[in-house]
Amino acid sequence: MIITLTTDFGLADPYVGVMKGVILGIAPDVQIVDITHQVPSYDVIETAAVLSSAYQYFPPETVHIVVVDPGVGSPRRPIAAASDGHVFVAPDNGVLSFVLDKAAAVYHITNERLFRHPLSSTFHGRDIFAPVAAHLAQGTPITSVGARITDPARKPYPGPCVLRIDKFGNIITNLRPEDLRPGSSIRIGGVSISRLRQTFAEADPGELCAIVGSTGFIEIILNQGSAAETLKVASGAEIEVESGSAKQ
Amino acid sequence: MIITLTTDFGLADPYVGVMKGVILGIAPDVQIVDITHQVPSYDVIETAAVLSSAYQYFPPETVHIVVVDPGVGSPRRPIAAASDGHVFVAPDNGVLSFVLDKAAAVYHITNERLFRHPLSSTFHGRDIFAPVAAHLAQGTPITSVGARITDPARKPYPGPCVLRIDKFGNIITNLRPEDLRPGSSIRIGGVSISRLRQTFAEADPGELCAIVGSTGFIEIILNQGSAAETLKVASGAEIEVESGSAKQ
Amino acid sequence: MIITLTTDFGLADPYVGVMKGVILGIAPDVQIVDITHQVPSYDVIETAAVLSSAYQYFPPETVHIVVVDPGVGSPRRPIAAASDGHVFVAPDNGVLSFVLDKAAAVYHITNERLFRHPLSSTFHGRDIFAPVAAHLAQGTPITSVGARITDPARKPYPGPCVLRIDKFGNIITNLRPEDLRPGSSIRIGGVSISRLRQTFAEADPGELCAIVGSTGFIEIILNQGSAAETLKVASGAEIEVESGSAKQ
Repeated sequence: MIITLTTDFGLADPYVGVMKGVILGIAPDVQIVDITHQVPSYDVIETAAVLSSAYQYFPPETVHIVVVDPGVGSPRRPIAAASDGHVFVAPDNGVLSFVLDKAAAVYHITNERLFRHPLSSTFHGRDIFAPVAAHLAQGTPITSVGARITDPARKPYPGPCVLRIDKFGNIITNLRPEDLRPGSSIRIGGVSISRLRQTFAEADPGELCAIVGSTGFIEIILNQGSAAETLKVASGAEIEVESGSAKQ
Repeated sequence: MIITLTTDFGLADPYVGVMKGVILGIAPDVQIVDITHQVPSYDVIETAAVLSSAYQYFPPETVHIVVVDPGVGSPRRPIAAASDGHVFVAPDNGVLSFVLDKAAAVYHITNERLFRHPLSSTFHGRDIFAPVAAHLAQGTPITSVGARITDPARKPYPGPCVLRIDKFGNIITNLRPEDLRPGSSIRIGGVSISRLRQTFAEADPGELCAIVGSTGFIEIILNQGSAAETLKVASGAEIEVESGSAKQ
Repeated sequence: MIITLTTDFGLADPYVGVMKGVILGIAPDVQIVDITHQVPSYDVIETAAVLSSAYQYFPPETVHIVVVDPGVGSPRRPIAAASDGHVFVAPDNGVLSFVLDKAAAVYHITNERLFRHPLSSTFHGRDIFAPVAAHLAQGTPITSVGARITDPARKPYPGPCVLRIDKFGNIITNLRPEDLRPGSSIRIGGVSISRLRQTFAEADPGELCAIVGSTGFIEIILNQGSAAETLKVASGAEIEVESGSAKQ
């Protein structure tokens, strides 16, 4: 079985290692994979976007733990969800907004026998999410975590915008190729980009262009350079889709 | 079996991966978990603090490798220790100061049959600590590493101070809740903080306050902000505990 | 079986985690080890240097995936190579230059049954290198990936220069101890260094000197300080070897 971790904890502190210690104490044979621990602190929307672009590359029945949790210690619910053949364990603050499909079954985690004790009020990643995920990976049925709920927090899918900037400075938008009609173009950071290329290699070095990225979204890239730096845009920046002329 | 790693190697260099290669060559089925590789270079006290706040969340018999080793190549001893049901492998420079209990059994590692050869003078993490830990995880008795010693290096536990700043800017002190009598307050970075809250969520956004953190120490936090930046304090900064007035 | 990963992806993006998900979907019991994900973006030579200094510490038959791939989507070939008892999977751009020995067998990866589908044009790490490596780790013979080739890209081994700066500011050169004859010295960053010490500990704190590093190369170090900062040299900087006087 596989458990993945997506948090805003960073890697300098021992928090991630501690969660893994708790997991392996319950599920010694599980494979633990880090998706990322460098989501911007408290950024629920970017977490939701990263998770939705990553989880489907794992085998079915993978348990995904998400801990970006500005409300830890408040009455926000911890939840577990079965959706699209995967399992998710997270605070109910919208981080699962883009992975819960229509048939998703969501449960309010209340079964304290699955928790680590004593339960802290500041580190539910260690005391609730890690042990519950480990038990689920070991075969505990998801129905045993608590009552089913029908109102998990959902963030609205944002309008055309920059989802993330990646390490290479590629600008990952939430536009799909079908959002661009022939002749239309993307206006971002003061420039218009109309040509959709197939690969990085097709672009000339130093050329700014749009490609269909590896998760199916349109990315604005500068071949072997940083598009984000060049255009001075950041995560969340708005994008305008300009329609083509009537003559087309 | 589990082996954890705590070093100041960072993640850009191949040093950590190389240690894992050596471990898996000896103990192919071990689970390796990173606690952190981003302890400030050569900082023995912070390493000791991080390790003591993390190791107990791993199952008993976990082998913890610690390599923060400014004296590598000098006559400082490599040691292995059994304490509190866990095993530690480290240079004898004080990094184990806060994990060795009264009943700890400490051994001077001298058995070269457990080393990697040729033995370098600059990377004992690869040539001594990793292979010795792997052999211990495989069942080699700790008594076979070398002679028992009774004088491992111990750093004195520091007075009231900042142990670490975490990724969120939370100021982790070495004060316990019982160090704060009713009416007393904590003086740090020019401000006095008297109120101990239970959770992050209880504090107003932007409010500076003290909470009992997830490892039982008092932390100074700024809800959804960086307390360390606001107070301009760093790891090691002194803290004053001001006693309450006689009238209480 | 072990699969290692060496990329320039960084750890903030989900790219590395996604590759691990693909690997574990094919080879559920493999041990995955990160060598580094922080090679400078697109830097083929530094990648080749890091890989050559790390791979030999893993057990034979380890499969090493290397994805530093500025030409992804171009006609550059994906290759798999058996060399020195290890297996390498990488783009054919020179990243394997320093690990392919005389007896290396190199294959052009063309067998699409080993790929992930649909095949993207921008993320061959996920769609070609990860699944092919997982199949090789599972026992698929390397001859089944495609036709053998005899002309893999090879970068010339650079002249005396700085290979890398590590996290401690140590300057890792590509000089071997035998490159320094008695009386000769190393000229770098405006200073001459003639004395070769055995260990960090032998140098006085603050002393700049040369040692034989853990992978057999000469390193310029400043004991408990950053030699790279002091000398203001970076990766790739040239080094001069000054021969000793005729009188020796």
